[in-house]
Amino acid sequence: MNKALKYIEQHNDAFISELFELLRIPSISAQSEHKPDMQRCAEWLAASLVKAGADHAEVIPTDGNPVVFAEKIISPDAKTVLVYGHYDVMPVDPREEWHTDPFEPVVKDGRIWGRGADDDKGQLFMHAKAFEAMCATDTLPCNVKFMLEGEEEIGSAHLYDFCRENREMLKADIILVSDTSMLSMETPSITCGLRGLTYMEVEVTGPNKDLHSGLFGGAVANPANVLTRLVASLVDENGRITIPGFYDDVRELTAEERKAFNEAPFSLEEYKQALDIDDVEGEKGYTTLERTGVRPSLDVNGIWGGYTGEGTKTVIPSKASAKISMRLVPNQDFNKIGELFAAHFKAIAPKSVKVDVRFLHGGAPYVAPTDMPAYKAAEKAIETTFGKKPLPFYSGGSIPIISGFEQILGIKSLLIGFGLSQDAIHSPNESYGLDQFRKGMETIPWFYKYFAGK
Amino acid sequence: MNKALKYIEQHNDAFISELFELLRIPSISAQSEHKPDMQRCAEWLAASLVKAGADHAEVIPTDGNPVVFAEKIISPDAKTVLVYGHYDVMPVDPREEWHTDPFEPVVKDGRIWGRGADDDKGQLFMHAKAFEAMCATDTLPCNVKFMLEGEEEIGSAHLYDFCRENREMLKADIILVSDTSMLSMETPSITCGLRGLTYMEVEVTGPNKDLHSGLFGGAVANPANVLTRLVASLVDENGRITIPGFYDDVRELTAEERKAFNEAPFSLEEYKQALDIDDVEGEKGYTTLERTGVRPSLDVNGIWGGYTGEGTKTVIPSKASAKISMRLVPNQDFNKIGELFAAHFKAIAPKSVKVDVRFLHGGAPYVAPTDMPAYKAAEKAIETTFGKKPLPFYSGGSIPIISGFEQILGIKSLLIGFGLSQDAIHSPNESYGLDQFRKGMETIPWFYKYFAGK
Repeated sequence: MNKALKYIEQHNDAFISELFELLRIPSISAQSEHKPDMQRCAEWLAASLVKAGADHAEVIPTDGNPVVFAEKIISPDAKTVLVYGHYDVMPVDPREEWHTDPFEPVVKDGRIWGRGADDDKGQLFMHAKAFEAMCATDTLPCNVKFMLEGEEEIGSAHLYDFCRENREMLKADIILVSDTSMLSMETPSITCGLRGLTYMEVEVTGPNKDLHSGLFGGAVANPANVLTRLVASLVDENGRITIPGFYDDVRELTAEERKAFNEAPFSLEEYKQALDIDDVEGEKGYTTLERTGVRPSLDVNGIWGGYTGEGTKTVIPSKASAKISMRLVPNQDFNKIGELFAAHFKAIAPKSVKVDVRFLHGGAPYVAPTDMPAYKAAEKAIETTFGKKPLPFYSGGSIPIISGFEQILGIKSLLIGFGLSQDAIHSPNESYGLDQFRKGMETIPWFYKYFAGK
Repeated sequence: MNKALKYIEQHNDAFISELFELLRIPSISAQSEHKPDMQRCAEWLAASLVKAGADHAEVIPTDGNPVVFAEKIISPDAKTVLVYGHYDVMPVDPREEWHTDPFEPVVKDGRIWGRGADDDKGQLFMHAKAFEAMCATDTLPCNVKFMLEGEEEIGSAHLYDFCRENREMLKADIILVSDTSMLSMETPSITCGLRGLTYMEVEVTGPNKDLHSGLFGGAVANPANVLTRLVASLVDENGRITIPGFYDDVRELTAEERKAFNEAPFSLEEYKQALDIDDVEGEKGYTTLERTGVRPSLDVNGIWGGYTGEGTKTVIPSKASAKISMRLVPNQDFNKIGELFAAHFKAIAPKSVKVDVRFLHGGAPYVAPTDMPAYKAAEKAIETTFGKKPLPFYSGGSIPIISGFEQILGIKSLLIGFGLSQDAIHSPNESYGLDQFRKGMETIPWFYKYFAGK
């Protein structure tokens, strides 16, 4: 083991330079103009994995962005770890809020700054480099497979079929994923729960063209006004979502579970201070940890309509739209929730407007059992490198494909993420600590060792 | 008189070519990048007025866009008409909805298509050309002054001071304005009432940066959700504005006034059909004509926040904003309404967000007496050219400066507009009928004649 760790120490700077190459590729899956960047990024990763020691690596086309698959088989009797990650990144708007170019990474204040520095290029690259260290020092105790996709940020639409079509190739004992956060470097944690997601877009249409708000104002339904009314009504004054049937399948925690859940270290004051808010807001009767960990939520992710430029324009817009997503918890079904949302939104729309409701993407919630061997191995590995036993943690985020893996491949996932909330993933000025990157790389070989039972 | 009308007939095509030159200048006052176009447009107009017969014309700088002033004094004893118009135009977004280039006018289906074709370049140009016709044929019976501003669409901020500083130069018996519509070519009308306007912008700020909606969703106030809640609450289920004190100064019509008001020809079915809506929506207890003519209203003119691009982004935006304007009726004060709005909006904001409320511009409502000589002259002139006595009409629109003229200069305005609702002013595909342009030019010399008492 020491040989692999020594290799990591000696090559740390080179690894960071290589990561920078990866971060420079603007692989934004949500924007079709970046299509060529997706292919370029996949090819770069395949080449990198072969260099790291894979027997072979392929860029496999799908109906969407390609999947990178690589493997190294040391023995048919050894356990097999399937590393999953995603090379696509979030859009960078609002770009003007970035202090540095999102696709020209820099190191400053002990952190790597750039889009994807954490989510998920920085995290997946730790696995590539820990793998390289074990290969180079002949200490790899498991078979390893890599499956890196380019559509996680837009719902992994084509990875489900990819898994269905490649069950044999993807056979493994555990899927290892670093795409989540820890509570802090001092309080390491393993994510054992993820929320699901249903992402919708609504469009409200009033008059067939933009109208002069003087000549028509007061007599014609303004779709922007109506949109605010409809959207506002989706959450009541107690923070409860008003869609009929929305909570039907929500698993309520027992009193003991709630107690255990709230034992995670958490300071509401520090939380508010970090976000510069005077008060939190959420479902009545639940703590902040519960609100993001085990309760569903509804957020407007984007809203637009009418004149949004400089100055004034006295217009009644013809249309107004919103992107609205809901985070789901066990045992909510994301398709069912999408249908309930659409039916409800149409039902509450007044006759004075037309509404169009589209389902954009979704994914199921996920729970990882804390007694499975991989969880135990990860717990031990983190304790070895962080000097502290990690806490089990329920994250509010979603990785829809994780529950898909279980359904399609019958393999559980272990979410061993090294992100921190300060990494600002999905936001301007995303970053990843050099210490997080290093500690992550050091933890992974220990996981392999313990998981292999050595 | 026949000489002037003959001149108009002979030069009609040339006038349209000249108008096209004017329409090609993209003088959008709301967008600072068009600053040079404002100056260019003003200079073009000054030159055009001199060519038409003015003794002199000047482009007079202000702290904003320049004012074009021109005059022709035929006799100190003659009555003086001050023609007011504006050469600035509205922005053209959404540009993709235009069927032709907004700044490359074309004639099609008997109409001139382009931004400003009606509002107000097409309408002010009728005055320039009717003036030219009277000058050329030596039939001008009044002194004429022109005051053409470049900031009407953004609130005429600098014209108030301009009037204060030029009271002597602007002395006149009536201000003649064509910046309004008629009911139809078959039912001509004169606008004797205008609504006032208070235009606000609100910004709701939640967390200090965009957040991941999975990690924070449900626990942090989402400013886009909060914005919809706050904006939706500004109008209740009866279409009444909920701002305390908002209706305090509204003059309620008497039963007789309401009866007379609703006698204007109006088909709700045609109205809905023209707008392609299944139902109208407005203040309970009032007709559509009343809702736009004599009742105040509140409209979202623009709303924006979060991710509005292609695909999905699971973000809680840091900020969300809206442009909100209110149309006012006698005797509401636009400054007071702005203050009431700001105080109310701040009062209803939850502690979980910060709100910023800005007053963008405003103007007072206006009523023109139907018994003043200019009204009588206009009535007679329209009857002469349209063959029908025009109806007095209360428009829902606002020309804030009109009440300013009365306060500062002590001069009433006559609103003799030749627009039609189908002209789609402020919208994509603005147009102006060739017949409207021609009929307008023909009506104006008759107005001068009757107003001069000849």
